[in-house]
Amino acid sequence: MNTAAVQAMLDALAAIGADPPGITRHAFDDRENAAHDLAIGHARRLGLEITRDAAANLYLTWPGADRAAPRTLLGSHFDTVRHGGNFDGAAGVVAALAAVSTLRAEGFVPRADVTIAAFRCEEAVWFGLGLIGSRAALGILPPEALDRRRADTGLTLAQHIARCGGDPKAITPGARLLPPGPIRCFLEAHIEQAPSLLEAGAPIGICTGIPGNIRHAAIRITGADAHVGLPRRFRHDAALAGADIFTALDAMWAEEDAAGRAMAVTIGRFHTDTAKHEITVVAGDFTFSIDLRAYDAAHLAELERRFHDILATTAARRGVTIDLGPRNAAPLGPCDPALQAALAAAAARAGIATLPLGSPASHDAANFAAQGIPTGLLLVRNANGSHNPHEAMDTADLMAAAATFAEFLRETA
Amino acid sequence: MNTAAVQAMLDALAAIGADPPGITRHAFDDRENAAHDLAIGHARRLGLEITRDAAANLYLTWPGADRAAPRTLLGSHFDTVRHGGNFDGAAGVVAALAAVSTLRAEGFVPRADVTIAAFRCEEAVWFGLGLIGSRAALGILPPEALDRRRADTGLTLAQHIARCGGDPKAITPGARLLPPGPIRCFLEAHIEQAPSLLEAGAPIGICTGIPGNIRHAAIRITGADAHVGLPRRFRHDAALAGADIFTALDAMWAEEDAAGRAMAVTIGRFHTDTAKHEITVVAGDFTFSIDLRAYDAAHLAELERRFHDILATTAARRGVTIDLGPRNAAPLGPCDPALQAALAAAAARAGIATLPLGSPASHDAANFAAQGIPTGLLLVRNANGSHNPHEAMDTADLMAAAATFAEFLRETA
Repeated sequence: MNTAAVQAMLDALAAIGADPPGITRHAFDDRENAAHDLAIGHARRLGLEITRDAAANLYLTWPGADRAAPRTLLGSHFDTVRHGGNFDGAAGVVAALAAVSTLRAEGFVPRADVTIAAFRCEEAVWFGLGLIGSRAALGILPPEALDRRRADTGLTLAQHIARCGGDPKAITPGARLLPPGPIRCFLEAHIEQAPSLLEAGAPIGICTGIPGNIRHAAIRITGADAHVGLPRRFRHDAALAGADIFTALDAMWAEEDAAGRAMAVTIGRFHTDTAKHEITVVAGDFTFSIDLRAYDAAHLAELERRFHDILATTAARRGVTIDLGPRNAAPLGPCDPALQAALAAAAARAGIATLPLGSPASHDAANFAAQGIPTGLLLVRNANGSHNPHEAMDTADLMAAAATFAEFLRETA
Repeated sequence: MNTAAVQAMLDALAAIGADPPGITRHAFDDRENAAHDLAIGHARRLGLEITRDAAANLYLTWPGADRAAPRTLLGSHFDTVRHGGNFDGAAGVVAALAAVSTLRAEGFVPRADVTIAAFRCEEAVWFGLGLIGSRAALGILPPEALDRRRADTGLTLAQHIARCGGDPKAITPGARLLPPGPIRCFLEAHIEQAPSLLEAGAPIGICTGIPGNIRHAAIRITGADAHVGLPRRFRHDAALAGADIFTALDAMWAEEDAAGRAMAVTIGRFHTDTAKHEITVVAGDFTFSIDLRAYDAAHLAELERRFHDILATTAARRGVTIDLGPRNAAPLGPCDPALQAALAAAAARAGIATLPLGSPASHDAANFAAQGIPTGLLLVRNANGSHNPHEAMDTADLMAAAATFAEFLRETA
């Protein structure tokens, strides 16, 4: 696939997800299926084997000379957040297809199988839990996840998987759904969700590590509804308690930043009850989400402890109670040092500048790294972050990622 | 009306407004009309004259011996917030009816007319502007108010007034809609919206002043939607800006409290966009309301200036823009010193303990005070604030307010 063919595939993906003002490809639903069908069309033209697993993940396999030799797995996901951009996830599958296409056109024959994976439902917005397809593929999906409901459809994850041709009963802890046989390594390309590569003037980052995170989708603060005229000393203002917590977490982050300890904290949902809040009523209820992430397990644990301290201090000061609700966690994803070096060398051979870079975000790759599978991640330059309609990846930079993969596979696959 | 009759009227009002988990009597709508009808039934039994004005306010007049002598006006409102309590507003009309009923049963004949008013739409939740009926009655309703729409019905205030038999065209600045002739004074009874009387062990407070306020119903903060992994230095987090503003305003209030300068600030609406916010997306949009109140015009102006400073500082620090949207203001309501003394004396003669007390909230009375009409306000003990289903007024305390009004009228009307 040359630049024009890659551009055409990206355009087709944008058409599938068109949902002004952004792109929406709902996980385990028609639009994700349509993206899978598009990839299958390319795979057929490339003569790849097409298989699915019980979680309805898609695998496109280029058979190697020795089918029993450890397989190279490359992949990412097609689902997006609501009104997101076109590239978060999809770019990684397209880059892998482009790399295989290049090598195939050269007449290259891999020693072992090369499999391109499109994992389902990487985004946490659909079921309040992210990386679902790759967790299921690795046998590490929490069993309760199958009963989670998508807010918009009201259907459970199990029902959505079944509707996509999967078999939710076969998804159990410890049961790997990946193509059989040993895995040599897992590689992913993903747009960078920060403008660091843009600042540095490099098209590609070689990821040094993927942060682990802990998440709570809906933390409830309960104070007491009260009249606008109530003196300060009598108030139990749940929204003000929320404000205290957010500013305290931001102060913690500023402190960690200054000390050079990489982390991030995001409160994406932060709201009074919009069905009942009023200009003249002190809010007795407040809800917020949190995503807290860091690159080192001990550091993340320490940050979570400090978060709990902030909650306890705030609850006492504002006279409110705080219910954390369910906690989810995504593992840290240390990137394999040998793979980092090999990817950087491959890029250099292809004349592509790279930069070592921590990933701001979690990715399917993190699950493979956490399972001890050597994992490499290429970050692709992108101006405007992701999870928004303004993702801005230059197709030339995606071609640089594809060329790096091709050069890596030419040497090692 | 004895205690049992007053209790029966309160129970009937609760039945009209029943809307679990609270009480809702929608302004300019069926339930407010039903409360008016209930009051009209009592007025008929008492032989009062029943009139309405162009804003559909209700006046129940006990004719005095000299119809041209300055009238005593007593009143409050029947509308509530959504899922509020039974007493905010309604208690004042009931107390006035009970006082007139007591005097009438005694054979007392007032020298001048005594008029009980039920003003429409005191609560700001319905059209984003409060004290609408009494503003219209005094000829001080902002003309643009008639075009405001009630969010739930989509109808304008003018349409709602017309549906209640009013004549919106006759509501113009400077045109008083009150019953004709001079006004001696305006009196209101209202539940206290703080537990100060409960703390002090007094059934009745003699109000020393009503705060003025400035309000913005929907202040919009615009930052940039961004991915959960975006480093801190790149973020323009609108929700965090909101948190900064709220905590800064609370710090200002704590400082004013410590200095003994009475004020209040309430942010009742404080929210990300619940239709699009996500756990993994930094919020680019945030909306909040504000009600800022104080008892002195210069103090209120200074607080508003400091609020604007906080907005400007936050916008600069967080890289966001802030759109204040429409501003509304309610006037300060200084309570007449002679009326304060006369009401305290009347209560003392009736053996009722009182306490001088600043009103935490604005009331219809504030409009009369701001127009230079001598104004008195009785605050009635109430455990759980107002604008919530847990308002807790003892009927015996309302009877104390009625007895104070009766004793005041016996002496002066």
